[in-house]
Formats: sequence, structure tokens, C-alpha cells
Amino acid sequence: MPEVHETRRARLRDRVNASGSASALVTRPANVRYLTGVAPPGAALLLGRTEDLLVHGTAPGTSPGAAAADGRPDEALRIHTLPSPGGDPAVAAAGLAAAQGADSLAVEEHHLTVARHRAIGSVAPALRLADVGGAVEQLRVIKDEEEISCLRIGAEIADQALGELLESILVGRTERHLALELERRLVDHGADGPAFRTSVGTGPHSGRRGHRPTDRRVEEGDFLSVCLGATYHGYRCEIGRTFVIGTSPADWQIELYDLVFASQRAGREALVPGAAYRDVDRAARQVLDSAGHTEGLPESTGHGVGLEIDEEPQLAPAAMGKLDACVPVTVEPGVHLPGRGGVRIDDTLVVRPEADGGPELLTITTKELLAL
Amino acid sequence: MPEVHETRRARLRDRVNASGSASALVTRPANVRYLTGVAPPGAALLLGRTEDLLVHGTAPGTSPGAAAADGRPDEALRIHTLPSPGGDPAVAAAGLAAAQGADSLAVEEHHLTVARHRAIGSVAPALRLADVGGAVEQLRVIKDEEEISCLRIGAEIADQALGELLESILVGRTERHLALELERRLVDHGADGPAFRTSVGTGPHSGRRGHRPTDRRVEEGDFLSVCLGATYHGYRCEIGRTFVIGTSPADWQIELYDLVFASQRAGREALVPGAAYRDVDRAARQVLDSAGHTEGLPESTGHGVGLEIDEEPQLAPAAMGKLDACVPVTVEPGVHLPGRGGVRIDDTLVVRPEADGGPELLTITTKELLAL
Repeated sequence: MPEVHETRRARLRDRVNASGSASALVTRPANVRYLTGVAPPGAALLLGRTEDLLVHGTAPGTSPGAAAADGRPDEALRIHTLPSPGGDPAVAAAGLAAAQGADSLAVEEHHLTVARHRAIGSVAPALRLADVGGAVEQLRVIKDEEEISCLRIGAEIADQALGELLESILVGRTERHLALELERRLVDHGADGPAFRTSVGTGPHSGRRGHRPTDRRVEEGDFLSVCLGATYHGYRCEIGRTFVIGTSPADWQIELYDLVFASQRAGREALVPGAAYRDVDRAARQVLDSAGHTEGLPESTGHGVGLEIDEEPQLAPAAMGKLDACVPVTVEPGVHLPGRGGVRIDDTLVVRPEADGGPELLTITTKELLAL
Repeated sequence: MPEVHETRRARLRDRVNASGSASALVTRPANVRYLTGVAPPGAALLLGRTEDLLVHGTAPGTSPGAAAADGRPDEALRIHTLPSPGGDPAVAAAGLAAAQGADSLAVEEHHLTVARHRAIGSVAPALRLADVGGAVEQLRVIKDEEEISCLRIGAEIADQALGELLESILVGRTERHLALELERRLVDHGADGPAFRTSVGTGPHSGRRGHRPTDRRVEEGDFLSVCLGATYHGYRCEIGRTFVIGTSPADWQIELYDLVFASQRAGREALVPGAAYRDVDRAARQVLDSAGHTEGLPESTGHGVGLEIDEEPQLAPAAMGKLDACVPVTVEPGVHLPGRGGVRIDDTLVVRPEADGGPELLTITTKELLAL
């Protein structure tokens, strides 16, 4: 039985050959990992005419985050380590493609720089260079059950980390400390690390997407919004919640929370196979729109997750395409009122057919408005 | 008096014009920050014929790490926010260059992807596209005293974090926890964040450059090697130390430590203005070579630091160029014996003339072999 990465490479090879190229060069790190299971820094994957080759070296730029391959490649993949330091694995791989007798090579033009592309042209002038486009990213959209299982475990870890934080004293602590504490707990519970920089926003910072934690301390009466995620075996998930600090939320806080909650629920409920990306976005967006929150709305109300925290599809007004089953996405509308704060609610879900019970919610922390 | 970023842009403009281009487009984030003081995600800087323009938007890919500008641009810089979401600031900037009447535009071919380069060509077909090369990186090599001051504060923070860790109980704790603890302490002491992923290696993992922390616990008799750094106002420094756990180091540990110490000292002492990069590397390297550690030596024994943790110059056998005063570099030789562990010692120093007292050591934690 062919190994999963070998099967993925076979699918890519079919696409590349169908578009008229004999070989392909994959350089985007998440794509290399998807197709080989390993990701040495700077590595390049050659889907060659006669064999598949993972070329890696130790680029000068990799210190001190350098690390060797973090998995075990399948047996059909040949590994080629650059003999001399400082070489570019992509350029070397192109030379090997030419040596294999390929006359054409499809490269990732959205990842390769102009300078590297030119170096490839110089080392293999007889190769016709084409564009493989987002072919690998497209393959990555629909996840297999093993990938979803990694996301599910990551989501459990994030839920645990968040749940523990909620049991501790929050008033008086800074956004930075809460964020670090969450990241420590993610690792405690077995995450490879945070899936992205943990965001903690208090008071007027609450509800801002991607807010970078500051030294502001949690105060009574604040909204507190938190967005975090775990990476587990390379897969990244995301959860966001907003809480209120103190015993009784103000009327405006309850009202705003209910509104964002309704918007997020509408988005979640729109996650069915066959739904257009833009329709999912519209479902969430129109709830906010109709309440008059037309200013400063996010560009998208959700996005795919996987080996990267923000990947295809985008759930946005201008997005083209339709959801398939087994696509994990976030649904994360929010409203931020300048000077006052706001609310974000963010879940990671997997699109599933209604017959299977509809969307599978991976991040299960309650979405009631908790007063802490 | 012109503001520092304006002066830097003027220097770049001179170089660009001298190489025959009317305007330049800077897209590499650290370069944009160096020239403007701000770094909105995805922003592009146009050094135009008539004015300098910082173009930014909110790219779909920036969630959830998105952040607004983290500084205040100077008054000579005009800010242009893309009106519609999802646009590419670099492409928009090229269109604005054409609208300003430029006939040529130098771009960062080592940073722009082939796809973005093509999009620029489409939006401004009359512009002749040239390569600005590493011109901004070259400007960044020699630091001004304000930049060095940021590095100095970052180094103090890293020293503090490391010093506190050494006062705690280490035996029985995992590499991951020690790394997280160090990162928390960096932030406690005022760092923007870690300068890179903190590396903690115990026992057989010790001495490995860029080792990613695992769940291995510190044991009696281990070498423990730690490499960390703080980011302060965007500037990144690095310190690495190796300790021995328990009361009495083994003979092989003392011997190996003394060797790496001698190598690192030789590297530090070679840091004088006018020294060739490769000669600094050789000074450190030949101490290890002559003791028979020819296998698995690092490619470089040091590198520049600044807005990035690994920037020009590289202190490596094949590096071309000579040190100037006010260039901050690391000196970080190490030896790793497979299965046994090893030693790394890493400092950040600023090259200074002998008349000024020679190299300025920023990371002042002791390099005696401490038994903890």
C-alpha cells in the first residue's frame, strides 16, 4: 500500500503532467511537508521524471532556528543533502531535474523569489520553466481523517489551556502575561507550540483581531478577548472567546456579545458541503451589518486551517468557490468599538454533510458570556 | 534636522539613482522597518521620484497576527492605505510610481516572488524593472548608536533571564519548560518577545546548534546548553552558554568546554575593524580543527544581528568582506559529540576600534564553566 505522502505526490504529478510539465519543484515549506512528511529548513522537493528527490542543506540563514527533518520520509523519496554549505536546495534540485532528462519544470512562482528563479534558469538553461501555481495548496484544502485528528487534538489542547486560565485570578494581570501563560499551558498539554502569536486584549483592546498583547492589566468591568491555538504534529487550529470581568456585564456588553454570538452562529450554521465561501461569509456578516456595524468589519469572517494557520479557503465577500466536506475552517466574526472594546468569537470546525450531523465543532469551550 | 529614517532613505535613493533607476520599491519587512520605523504587515515602501510612500493594506494572510504600524513614521513619508481589501501593496505602489512619472523601478528581486513581480509588470507595463539587490541590507550592516543601544538593552534582558534561571532548581525539568520559562522572563524584563525560538539542550542534545527543546529532563552529570535572545524595539541579540549539572564535571566535559571556550575567545579577539570576515571565522575554527574536531563543524562561527537575528555579515570560510566599526555580530563556535552532547558558547559583541577598548561585549553572563 503506498504511503500517504507518496499518494499525495502522485496526485500532484498527475496535475503537473496534465498541464504539460515533465517535473515540478516545490519550495513552500508547508507544501514540502505536506508532500514528504518532513520539513528541513530551506528544503526543496523535486517531483522528477524518474524519482522524487528531497534536496536539503544547511542554509546560512537558518541559524539558530535550524532543525533537522522532524519526521521520517517514505521509502519512495530519495534524500539528497547538499555537499557544500550555503547552496540553494531549489537551484540544486533544478540541476538534478535537468540531469534526469526533464525538459520542463513547473515551479511555485508564488513562493520562489525572482532572484532564485533566475538562478534556476542559469543552472539549467535548457529547462522550460512553468508555473505550478497553487496546485499543492489546492490539494491541501480537503483533509484526510488523520489530518483532522491532529486538528482535533490541537483543539482539545487549546480548550484545556483556555479552561485552566479561566479558573485563575485574572484581575490585575497584564495581557502579555496572560498570553505567555496560555502558551506555556499549550506546551504543557502536548502542543508542538502555539499555532500563532496568542492574542489577549483587555478593555479597549478587546475584540481587536490580531491584537498584540501589551502591558495593560485586566480591570473590573473589562471585556477580555483571547485568541489562541495549538500546533499538533504540524496542524494548527484556532479558538477565540470573549469574557467579561466582574459580576455584572453592562447592557452594551450584553447587547454586543449577543450580536456577535448570533453572527458567529449564523456562520457556523452556513457550513454545509456545497455552500459558496461568500455565502458563509454573508451569513455571518449580515447579522452585524443589520445592527449597523458596517464600519471596520473584518475582510473575512473565517479561513481554512491546516499546516498553516491561514490557508485556503477564505470566507470573504469576494471569495470564489464552494465548501467541500472535510474542510476545516474558522468562523470568527467580531466587532470592535474604538475606545470601548469589543467581542470576537472564533471556532475551528470541520465541514461535514448533514447526514453525518453537520459541521463538527473542534473547539468546544462554551460560548456563553462568562462573567469572571 | 532630518529624521533618521529620512536620512536612511536619502542614502538608499542616492544608491538607486546612481545605478540608473528613478525609483525603488522595498518590500522585505525588516528593510521597510529600517527605512520608515514602522512595519505594517505586507507594507511596501516606494522611494518615488517626487515623494516617499508607504503603501499598506490588510492582506487576507495577516490574520490573526495582524498588527497596525508599531511606530510613528516621519513627516516626509506619505502613508497610503489600500482602499479595498486583499490588494497587494507592492503592486499598488508600482502603479503609483508609474503615476508619478517614473520610467524605472528597482525592486528587491531576492524578496519579491515571481508572481508578484509579474503582477507589477502588468500594472505598470511602461516601468523598466531593475534589481535593487541587497542595497538596504548593506545599509543595515553598520549600526548607529541608537540601534546599538537597543541591542545592548536586549542583551541585558537576556542576561537577566538567564541569570534568574540559573538560580532555580534545574534537575528534573524538561527542555521545553526551561525554554518557556526563559521566554516568559524575557518578556517580564521588557522584551518585545524572544528574538528567536529559545534552544535548550540537555545531555546528548547539548551543544547542538538550533536544537528544538524536547521533553527530555535535566539529569545529574548532563551538559546543559541554552541559547536565547531578546527582541527590544525590534532589535535582536543572542546569547548561548553551556553549564554542567552536578558538583563535579567529568574530565571530558572540562576538556571540551576549555576547547570551545578557547575557540570562542579567539573569535572574539579577532573582532577588529578591517578584519576579514573569513579570518574571524578561521581564528575560532582553527582552535577546534587543531583539536581534531573537523567533522560537523558549523558553517559559520558567527553572524550579524539587528532587525533580524541572522543578517549580514556571515563569519564563514567563504565570506567576502571586512568588518567595520559599529557592526554587531555573534561569535558562537560549538562542538557536539553524537550521543554524548557538547558545548556552545555564544556572545553578541559590537566591533569597536582598539582605541575605544576593542570589541564591546553586550552579553556579559560569565563564561566560566558553572556546575549547577
